[in-house]
Amino acid sequence: MRTRLSWLATLALLATWISVAVAQTDPLPSWNDGPAKQAIVAFVTDVTREGSPDFVPPSERVATFDNDGTLWIEQPIYVQFAYALERVRALAPQHPEWKETQPFKAVLEGDMSALAAAGEKGAVEIVAATHAGMPPDEFKQQVKEWLATAKHPRFERRYEELVYQPMLEVLTYMRANGFKTFIVSGGGIEFIRAFAEKSYGIPPDQIVGSSIVTKFERRDGRPTLFRLPEVNFVDDGPGKPVGINQHIGLRPIAAFGNSDGDLQMLQWTTEAGGRRLGVVVHHTDAEREYAYDRNSKVGHLDKALDAASVDRWTVVDMKRDWKTIFPVRQ
Amino acid sequence: MRTRLSWLATLALLATWISVAVAQTDPLPSWNDGPAKQAIVAFVTDVTREGSPDFVPPSERVATFDNDGTLWIEQPIYVQFAYALERVRALAPQHPEWKETQPFKAVLEGDMSALAAAGEKGAVEIVAATHAGMPPDEFKQQVKEWLATAKHPRFERRYEELVYQPMLEVLTYMRANGFKTFIVSGGGIEFIRAFAEKSYGIPPDQIVGSSIVTKFERRDGRPTLFRLPEVNFVDDGPGKPVGINQHIGLRPIAAFGNSDGDLQMLQWTTEAGGRRLGVVVHHTDAEREYAYDRNSKVGHLDKALDAASVDRWTVVDMKRDWKTIFPVRQ
Repeated sequence: MRTRLSWLATLALLATWISVAVAQTDPLPSWNDGPAKQAIVAFVTDVTREGSPDFVPPSERVATFDNDGTLWIEQPIYVQFAYALERVRALAPQHPEWKETQPFKAVLEGDMSALAAAGEKGAVEIVAATHAGMPPDEFKQQVKEWLATAKHPRFERRYEELVYQPMLEVLTYMRANGFKTFIVSGGGIEFIRAFAEKSYGIPPDQIVGSSIVTKFERRDGRPTLFRLPEVNFVDDGPGKPVGINQHIGLRPIAAFGNSDGDLQMLQWTTEAGGRRLGVVVHHTDAEREYAYDRNSKVGHLDKALDAASVDRWTVVDMKRDWKTIFPVRQ
Repeated sequence: MRTRLSWLATLALLATWISVAVAQTDPLPSWNDGPAKQAIVAFVTDVTREGSPDFVPPSERVATFDNDGTLWIEQPIYVQFAYALERVRALAPQHPEWKETQPFKAVLEGDMSALAAAGEKGAVEIVAATHAGMPPDEFKQQVKEWLATAKHPRFERRYEELVYQPMLEVLTYMRANGFKTFIVSGGGIEFIRAFAEKSYGIPPDQIVGSSIVTKFERRDGRPTLFRLPEVNFVDDGPGKPVGINQHIGLRPIAAFGNSDGDLQMLQWTTEAGGRRLGVVVHHTDAEREYAYDRNSKVGHLDKALDAASVDRWTVVDMKRDWKTIFPVRQ
């Protein structure tokens, strides 16, 4: 028995040793070998090798990541939009007038074409009704509670389980190589803060996003921040380099996006002297996730794909490049 | 000779050992023993001791610092204002009309009372003429070049040599204890970014400050950020908690200020449940720096001093509490 136990122990040790060795040699195990994986690894190797002509000191290793469609799922509708619709339904009993008022009527009746007809004005009204009128901490708490139970209509998993495993590996890999990783999203900054530290290991001060106006005042003798129904900043398209400058104060050397909303961030990052990395995640896998492309309603990427060839960005073909899409369920 | 050399070497080693030991036991060597130093050390000890009822996990150890008058000198005028006046003089040859136009005429003639009479409108015009019309990187480069040579009128040292040595020790001490340190200043965010990493060890993404509007556009085919002569955000007074929320996304547990512009930041930080630290730097040393108080033109602190007793903030008496004010010249 003793011999057999020793043999098992040796085997277990060996297995551990092998898996550690593999993890050390392959920082991106969920990526198939191919041009996308090679481009990411080559970039990180080049800018971190002392003495390399492409060496970048750690203090300037800034990498920015779009969120929706780049770090987690964005179909069939943006997760934050699903949250807003759910909040309208939850708040409806306090607003009997919504039964007869657009765009709320459309939400309550599930009439998506009437909702689409309400356009941007309708969207702003829904954001005002569901995202304003409370302190930021209370808003984040509401989002956390929703994320704890709400499920994606097709995958029937919580949204936090629908982050992209290969991108989690990129975040970890870049941080292990001295990068500071930031989210730069068109989505709401406080919405993302509600889960980004837990899901991506990115702290609240490294989130750049759209925001509504927040006001400081004393209420009942206590200092209070309060969210107002008024747009403060739109961190999308040409707003992304502006948001990056305001929050980060350095020009990124790597940027990851998936749609035309990321076009200017990718240009701002890569159209500069020196070694740069631009990555466009292309959703090509209808079976394991979604396939969408030019002219899609959510996440269209006409200009980003055109620019990718001009600016030599790396296009990730999800079907070809990713072994797995979502993390394995615990 | 050999014996004497060995003896000297031993002595040198001993001296190094002693100074290391002292540095280890006293993280704030430029502070006199007294209530202010004790309050800072007791706070850091309490919130970092595992098992303590006041323990705060590292991810929530946020400390915010005002800049002018808290981390460096702000008399006889704010350093950034001295920069703006110098830029008006430097740019005057390109603007012959300034000889006859206020507030520029007042600057060029050194007529401080006419400048004061131009008020806030005049100040905004000077900021527009000196701080806008270029990319952020070019602005920061101009500030760096000025800081490399410009000297304080009384101390005849460069402004970066007029940071407060005791506060540099506080920054280092808190970071060594897992705190993330942020500047939260009424001054311009890009002005501070020009020197904060070098002077304070605080990176660009940990600076919160006032800003003018920055616009992204393609110029001559290149993606460009451009500073416009328009106020974007005023990070002062009630703006400080708003700026903290926007950039940091967490409520600080320690805040350091020196004037009424820091009142709301100090309230927001300390008027919350749990162990908190609020510090007001009181300029009481006319000989080694400046003595100013209620009703002073720059850095007035009427409300902050009143609130300090109510909210039990620690008031630093610079004359009593600081052994040295500025770093020893290299």
